[in-house]
Amino acid sequence: MEKTGAKSKENHRGISNQHIALKTPKGTRDHGPKATAIRQRLLDQVVRVFRKHGAVTIDTPVFELKEVLTGKYGDDSKLIYDLKDQGGELLALRYDLTVPFARYVSMNNISNIKRYHIAKVYRRDNPQITLGRYREFYQCDFDIAGMYDPMLPDAECVKIVCEILNEVGVGEFMVRLNHRKLLDGMLEVCGVPAKMFRAVCSSIDKLDKTPWDEVRREMIEQKGLDRESIDRISPYVAMKGGLDFFKQLTEDEQLKANANACEAFEDLRLLFEYCEIFKISNRISFDLSLARGLDYYTGVIYEAVLLNDDRNELSVGSVAGGGRYDNLVGMFNPKRKQQVPCVGVSIGVERLFSVLETRAVDQIRTNETELYVVSAHKGLHLRRLAILNQLWTAGFKAEHSYKRNPKLLAQLQHCEENQIPYAIILGEGELSRGVVKLRDISSRKEVEVTLDTLIEELRCRLSTEL
Amino acid sequence: MEKTGAKSKENHRGISNQHIALKTPKGTRDHGPKATAIRQRLLDQVVRVFRKHGAVTIDTPVFELKEVLTGKYGDDSKLIYDLKDQGGELLALRYDLTVPFARYVSMNNISNIKRYHIAKVYRRDNPQITLGRYREFYQCDFDIAGMYDPMLPDAECVKIVCEILNEVGVGEFMVRLNHRKLLDGMLEVCGVPAKMFRAVCSSIDKLDKTPWDEVRREMIEQKGLDRESIDRISPYVAMKGGLDFFKQLTEDEQLKANANACEAFEDLRLLFEYCEIFKISNRISFDLSLARGLDYYTGVIYEAVLLNDDRNELSVGSVAGGGRYDNLVGMFNPKRKQQVPCVGVSIGVERLFSVLETRAVDQIRTNETELYVVSAHKGLHLRRLAILNQLWTAGFKAEHSYKRNPKLLAQLQHCEENQIPYAIILGEGELSRGVVKLRDISSRKEVEVTLDTLIEELRCRLSTEL
Repeated sequence: MEKTGAKSKENHRGISNQHIALKTPKGTRDHGPKATAIRQRLLDQVVRVFRKHGAVTIDTPVFELKEVLTGKYGDDSKLIYDLKDQGGELLALRYDLTVPFARYVSMNNISNIKRYHIAKVYRRDNPQITLGRYREFYQCDFDIAGMYDPMLPDAECVKIVCEILNEVGVGEFMVRLNHRKLLDGMLEVCGVPAKMFRAVCSSIDKLDKTPWDEVRREMIEQKGLDRESIDRISPYVAMKGGLDFFKQLTEDEQLKANANACEAFEDLRLLFEYCEIFKISNRISFDLSLARGLDYYTGVIYEAVLLNDDRNELSVGSVAGGGRYDNLVGMFNPKRKQQVPCVGVSIGVERLFSVLETRAVDQIRTNETELYVVSAHKGLHLRRLAILNQLWTAGFKAEHSYKRNPKLLAQLQHCEENQIPYAIILGEGELSRGVVKLRDISSRKEVEVTLDTLIEELRCRLSTEL
Repeated sequence: MEKTGAKSKENHRGISNQHIALKTPKGTRDHGPKATAIRQRLLDQVVRVFRKHGAVTIDTPVFELKEVLTGKYGDDSKLIYDLKDQGGELLALRYDLTVPFARYVSMNNISNIKRYHIAKVYRRDNPQITLGRYREFYQCDFDIAGMYDPMLPDAECVKIVCEILNEVGVGEFMVRLNHRKLLDGMLEVCGVPAKMFRAVCSSIDKLDKTPWDEVRREMIEQKGLDRESIDRISPYVAMKGGLDFFKQLTEDEQLKANANACEAFEDLRLLFEYCEIFKISNRISFDLSLARGLDYYTGVIYEAVLLNDDRNELSVGSVAGGGRYDNLVGMFNPKRKQQVPCVGVSIGVERLFSVLETRAVDQIRTNETELYVVSAHKGLHLRRLAILNQLWTAGFKAEHSYKRNPKLLAQLQHCEENQIPYAIILGEGELSRGVVKLRDISSRKEVEVTLDTLIEELRCRLSTEL
């Protein structure tokens, strides 16, 4: 009897404490008030720069028809999150903001637009939490679509990257720069067959993290490239530098004779000229080993990297990247006569967040409360509410304890812990004389202020923009 | 031969124009620059009010473990979007922001927090585009979690609703108010069996749109309620009014004798007192037919409705709603000793958007460009870039045509169409004298400004906050 009883009790407990895994899905996380505050500040800075350059913003659904995403991401398509077939259309979560942008431009027959879009994207990748790589993360894209003269929009994108990184203040950085057609030309003159270009490029792209010998072995063993071509590629991808190096490369006899390389040289010559005027050419590292993974680039490509300044900081690698992609919009509407060429840049806000989070001091405020209305003793909660109502009406950010009779010390402690600048302290004695105490929380100095002049006094002190 | 040829040509065309449906998923839509600008302005206003009341903000993933959502939405659970099982966890898109909030509070062992959260939620409902009901839409929630004294947080939520609707300026409105325990008490005294409370409430909740006879028939035929109970409910749910009506109801002999009703009366008495101090009691319509759909409410419930002001406006129904839910956080962690009671409000931003969109004049600006740098004739694009760079460095929002040699008229027309306040016009003659023309776009007046004083002059005119 007893045994059975014990067992049934156990079962019962098992049911009532029904186990729900209290976690967010794998590779995702919540952002609490502090993280959100840091993020919001960063995004505000980024948006201010986008706005300075005349951008509008748009919003697209978090999921797209599955077929919109199909065939856009090569091998990485396996990382797309599909929605369950619950009847109706087949849907998938967006993988980036560029394909939805191209779909939007094509669907609405837009011939030119300059827009930014900040939103979350989804990749069913193996999350590497320690490296700050998640399955849900923000992208922050700026793109210029339209038929314009060569390199004018492209140079502005590079300028924007520099403005943002300066503004955010994450230390020194460089912008690595290359051109898809120069890559093609280089591979041509090195004797690489055209059908192997993309595969070889994806190997070359690893050179920023992987030594040449390893990349060389990958090209031979996995990509099946002949040793002779590889030996010819080797000196090119080892080279990088500024304008001087670029000029030197344009004298390379083999490249000079290659049509693709010449087109790229013409673009890059203009780009260097414009970057000189924008006073950012010192940031630019022309680098033949930069290839970038995505298939859709057709022209200039670039990537910003933070320079380690010996302060032993998190090495976050690239913090922005982009380039020209002239054919993506056309893929959605092959019948349309006029192409819509595009160039853009994606700011790596997640990586910037992690740099800023490691630096962020503890004292980050998560709310903006300016005033805390305090009861000095019991029985004053209605007076507190009346004062609060006046403050809100006047536009102040004001709070109180949601207790009828909170302890004075607890209220003042709350102000100190939350860096609220002022407390307004109510007491029966003062109120009968028509005054309250105004306490400066950091200095702990108190002055009496008459209720008549309270709002005016506070406006002065807080110079509220009303 | 010819026939075959024609056919193969057709096939070929069929393949190259591979048909991708150029649309967003059913029940979703893009928001273009104009819609986004209107939305951003509204959300800024709403956030300002939340901030005034000391709220922080958090961010949670767009999907949750399926089991987190299970058992929270009753019948509506069938509207949850599931993700495809691609190996690993079973996931679903969030259905609202309240359940993720409760999960967040529980998971992080938070005992009190005041937060807002603005994000999209997902419901696989039958979209009613004409009524502005979509499958993807924004929610905009403010909640206060923590052990506080009765009705102090609740009254502040109602105050916030009033502040927001005043601020947004969508005309007159009322806040309908009721209490879950009063509903329970009313149903008890009317002889409704306890197990039928929720079903009968959901019928009563339709009374704002459906005549009594129809609701009565539903309660008899679908819910199986006896006629006598219904006849006793009838006078109660027909009643509504302000403080006077509330006082009158507290004298109802039957309700006075009911424990649930008495608890509710005590809450409501306090709430009316606090709302009087907050100067919003004129907005309150105490209404026994308000029930609200969600199961998790445990106390005061409210709903703001716009009043038709005979201007033949879109009838959008409720534009905000919320209430107290004291048990939801506990559902995630039954072992935790201390409950975390909550009260909150959800601002119906989608409905407010649609009201604002129908009112919005055409002249809404979608970007913030202040200055447009114009070439008066050929050959000046490098000079344009140099001036632009100065303007950006000084913090101005400035653009130019991305063409080397754009037509003067086209550039000025662009300024007029896009309401850009000023054009800076470059001409060889002026530049050789060290001046440019500054053109006020709306008045078409032009003055010469020396390059030395240009930035200063522009700061004056635009009173840029730098």
